[in-house]
Amino acid sequence: MRLALGQFNAVVGDLAGNAKKMGEICAEAVRAKTDLLAFPELAVCGYPPEDLLYKKHFLEDNRLSIEKLADDCPDITIIAGFAENYQGNSYNSAAVLQNGRISKIYRKGMLPNFGVFDERRYFQGGTEPVVINVAGLNIALTICFDIWNIEWLKDFYKDIGQNQMILNISASPFHTGKIRKREEIISQCAKEFNCAVSYCNLVGGQDELVFDGRSMFADSSGEIIAKARAFEEDLLIAEVNTTDGDVRVEPMQPAAVQPVDIVDEVYQALVLGTRDYARKNGFKKVLLGVSGGIDSSVTAAIAVAALGAENVVCVSMPSKFNSPESIKDAQKLAENLGVEFLTIPIEPVLNQFDESLATADGWDNPFDSAQGRKGVAYENLQSRIRGVILMSMSNSTGALVLTTGNKSETSVGYATLYGDTAGGFGIIKDVPKTMVYQLAEHINKTAPPLRKGRGQIIPADVISRPPSAELKEGQKDTDSLPDYDLLDEILKGYVEEDKSARQLVESGLPKDVVERVIRMVDKNEYKRRLSPPGIKITPKAFGKDRRLPITNRYSK
Amino acid sequence: MRLALGQFNAVVGDLAGNAKKMGEICAEAVRAKTDLLAFPELAVCGYPPEDLLYKKHFLEDNRLSIEKLADDCPDITIIAGFAENYQGNSYNSAAVLQNGRISKIYRKGMLPNFGVFDERRYFQGGTEPVVINVAGLNIALTICFDIWNIEWLKDFYKDIGQNQMILNISASPFHTGKIRKREEIISQCAKEFNCAVSYCNLVGGQDELVFDGRSMFADSSGEIIAKARAFEEDLLIAEVNTTDGDVRVEPMQPAAVQPVDIVDEVYQALVLGTRDYARKNGFKKVLLGVSGGIDSSVTAAIAVAALGAENVVCVSMPSKFNSPESIKDAQKLAENLGVEFLTIPIEPVLNQFDESLATADGWDNPFDSAQGRKGVAYENLQSRIRGVILMSMSNSTGALVLTTGNKSETSVGYATLYGDTAGGFGIIKDVPKTMVYQLAEHINKTAPPLRKGRGQIIPADVISRPPSAELKEGQKDTDSLPDYDLLDEILKGYVEEDKSARQLVESGLPKDVVERVIRMVDKNEYKRRLSPPGIKITPKAFGKDRRLPITNRYSK
Repeated sequence: MRLALGQFNAVVGDLAGNAKKMGEICAEAVRAKTDLLAFPELAVCGYPPEDLLYKKHFLEDNRLSIEKLADDCPDITIIAGFAENYQGNSYNSAAVLQNGRISKIYRKGMLPNFGVFDERRYFQGGTEPVVINVAGLNIALTICFDIWNIEWLKDFYKDIGQNQMILNISASPFHTGKIRKREEIISQCAKEFNCAVSYCNLVGGQDELVFDGRSMFADSSGEIIAKARAFEEDLLIAEVNTTDGDVRVEPMQPAAVQPVDIVDEVYQALVLGTRDYARKNGFKKVLLGVSGGIDSSVTAAIAVAALGAENVVCVSMPSKFNSPESIKDAQKLAENLGVEFLTIPIEPVLNQFDESLATADGWDNPFDSAQGRKGVAYENLQSRIRGVILMSMSNSTGALVLTTGNKSETSVGYATLYGDTAGGFGIIKDVPKTMVYQLAEHINKTAPPLRKGRGQIIPADVISRPPSAELKEGQKDTDSLPDYDLLDEILKGYVEEDKSARQLVESGLPKDVVERVIRMVDKNEYKRRLSPPGIKITPKAFGKDRRLPITNRYSK
Repeated sequence: MRLALGQFNAVVGDLAGNAKKMGEICAEAVRAKTDLLAFPELAVCGYPPEDLLYKKHFLEDNRLSIEKLADDCPDITIIAGFAENYQGNSYNSAAVLQNGRISKIYRKGMLPNFGVFDERRYFQGGTEPVVINVAGLNIALTICFDIWNIEWLKDFYKDIGQNQMILNISASPFHTGKIRKREEIISQCAKEFNCAVSYCNLVGGQDELVFDGRSMFADSSGEIIAKARAFEEDLLIAEVNTTDGDVRVEPMQPAAVQPVDIVDEVYQALVLGTRDYARKNGFKKVLLGVSGGIDSSVTAAIAVAALGAENVVCVSMPSKFNSPESIKDAQKLAENLGVEFLTIPIEPVLNQFDESLATADGWDNPFDSAQGRKGVAYENLQSRIRGVILMSMSNSTGALVLTTGNKSETSVGYATLYGDTAGGFGIIKDVPKTMVYQLAEHINKTAPPLRKGRGQIIPADVISRPPSAELKEGQKDTDSLPDYDLLDEILKGYVEEDKSARQLVESGLPKDVVERVIRMVDKNEYKRRLSPPGIKITPKAFGKDRRLPITNRYSK
């Protein structure tokens, strides 16, 4: 039996476009003489369609698209995910398309309703196992989370007899470490059922999520035999044969290159997530403010990798607080990347605002007379002027504004609301500062060499200079925040692992810092809620993944 | 048997504060010689606690608070909602406190996972009915959604024999029309089970939600016998007696005044929602931009009702496009309300921005040479300058910035991102424009009379003048949008009722307008995602209630 996994980049809501692409992949699978072609979970409508599933006409259109696909592809058996209205309930379903029609439908039994998932908001759980026979092979159908609870699955399929294969169609979003978990699950599943496992995953960016592909086959010994490309479309084809009770899988292609390490993996996720957010939302160009700091430098480099240098505009918006070195580094970065670079000093507007605001009660308060400098309101004003400049340029050119905040500062609210948080998409929003440095090194290591004597893409000084918001004289991030190594360790425990202050302190972290960081995280929930989406790369990102009330007095 | 319903305003996460207040209410109930006191759903931790429920220590602290409450209040039986960790799973539970300890626990069986609710994200459903006997009366315990599915409830309690009362503790958020639905459910429940129903609801604002209280009793004939205050704390006490198989309820107080109509109800919801968002988040003062238009006028009036005139600052930020009439009306409104009023013209900053942006590619594009005026980017720039002024004042005074957008413009994106959407809370975000007018009339009708010759709180011209954003010469909302009557009808069908374009057209609405409005709604999802929270008053508000992908090509 020859089986193909059609790992493709579906667009949410684009039923016609997705079905067209599935038709093209089907033609390719037919040319490769496959018996069976599988597409990802909810392939026809993209994942996750969220409240589109509350529209009856959306479910009707899902059905029509699947029927058309069946009609267009009568020559092989296809398994394709779609959103189904069945007897008045909604299901996350897999249609079996044969001879021009829907021959069977499997309905997902295990519905995830945690993390970024809301499937019990929409779907009923299916209760009927479905086994099909294709070219002599018995194949049990499953969808995504169905195989993540082996005990449930064993019970669900217990009366079905021996299968030669479990086919799983998935829309499993990326985070660091997820691929290992998936391989374990698939391997365990193969061993428990003593059958091959074919796993077809979605690929592509959708708002905060990136689906990383890496569809795979395991044989009945549990060994992962072949894996499709990561973060790219692919058609993974294999021969599946049974001999003496074993099920063997033989790939028809050379092995696809896989990410070399976690930083490489994150980099690729960010590139794909950025490209798809821009492309799928109709943006050709992006623009961002560059300060000569590491966050904006890494963001710019990833934007160039995602969209091409010709589609990235870097804007330097210096004030008297920006050092000549960082201004120069911003320009050097833009030159290295080969992007358009523009300088708009903010001093004239800043002075005019300062003058206009002089009549406002309280505008004198920000003066910190001890230091002879203005306070936080004046710092934030600079950041907001930059936000207005970028948004104005976005309005007049149609370019998407990228924000440059990382997860560490997003966590503790070290950002100006409607200032540096103003924009449409935050590439490194879920990347801890310590990993931003690793990404910078990765970019410099893997980028094509620059012209002689030009050094590296991201100037060495950008990486070595102590981070600063440059909103007042001599400012350093460490004036307000702990060292990023310590901060990121606390944040991982508190934000991603839901640990308490007490647990963190008991694990050896300093009590005063832990408590200060937790207070900062909690009181800045409102600011995160008003920040643009960014790409999830950790096990728990801000956004749909972590839903905390703004009004909340529990902070420990 | 004497029963009290302790309808109080819990704060999410404030376990100590909530327990303290519950103790005070308990003392009052003891003084009134009641046998049983019920508190709302999740009273100890507030509702909804969202992902706080993922913290093990939060559940432990819930338990400790309940135990302390039991210890503090040994003299009567108390039913109090709390979040429970039981055998490794989380439950939405009601503790029965008697003689200083937890004597029984009921665990909610029906978990809502639609609309604003995510209970299956956190909780397992309980499987055990609980009946207690207090002063000779058999009382079946239920929590909120348990009684909304009578068939399920009948099955769940079928082996329990005859009860004299069903007690339901709830956290049921307000929207227009909800109270009628609740009364129907409670009445039906009483009749089906032939017993009294006691319903204790939460009161107070929590982020986007307002809980409206209106706890009530029904007798076994299904008649609603007594109702607690709307949008206020209350302790509703009644005698419950059985005679000849009937269960009678006799209230111990005169009937509480109820809202006179839907507009009154919405007004009260907005006042409470605003007061609680400010108060619970530590804001004493608010500030907002006032244009002399109806949205900012109504917002200012509600803010004054919520927080007092001394805590509201109105800022007029005129440009050359604001008519002298509207500028004057803004000032008149502020005088009528007795609030601080400040004028900061934006022209000087606008001109400076215009000059600074001149070097940016594309900044010439906004020139609409045919009209000799700048285009949309220039319009938005004005709005963003106002946003920066308000946010700067917020930074320097600690006041919360109120946004003034209504649901109609929020729906179609008739707003400037990071301009008039910049702020912390949007009072009328879920109020359709047509209802904003009704609120204005309501405010004028019910406000205390002004000094002689001053007319009404909201000047008549504000209500009669055609709405305009005043961002260019002679602009009217109707240049870009359909009439608000038509727009609101389309939006109700599309946004709140998930109807398709085809359904709306078939119901008699004009096809071209329907299709244009739907396109506007869908393409502005990103803008809504980046706008501050506001108070839900309709059956489906933007926010947790309506979750659509930003990246989405399905628009019909």
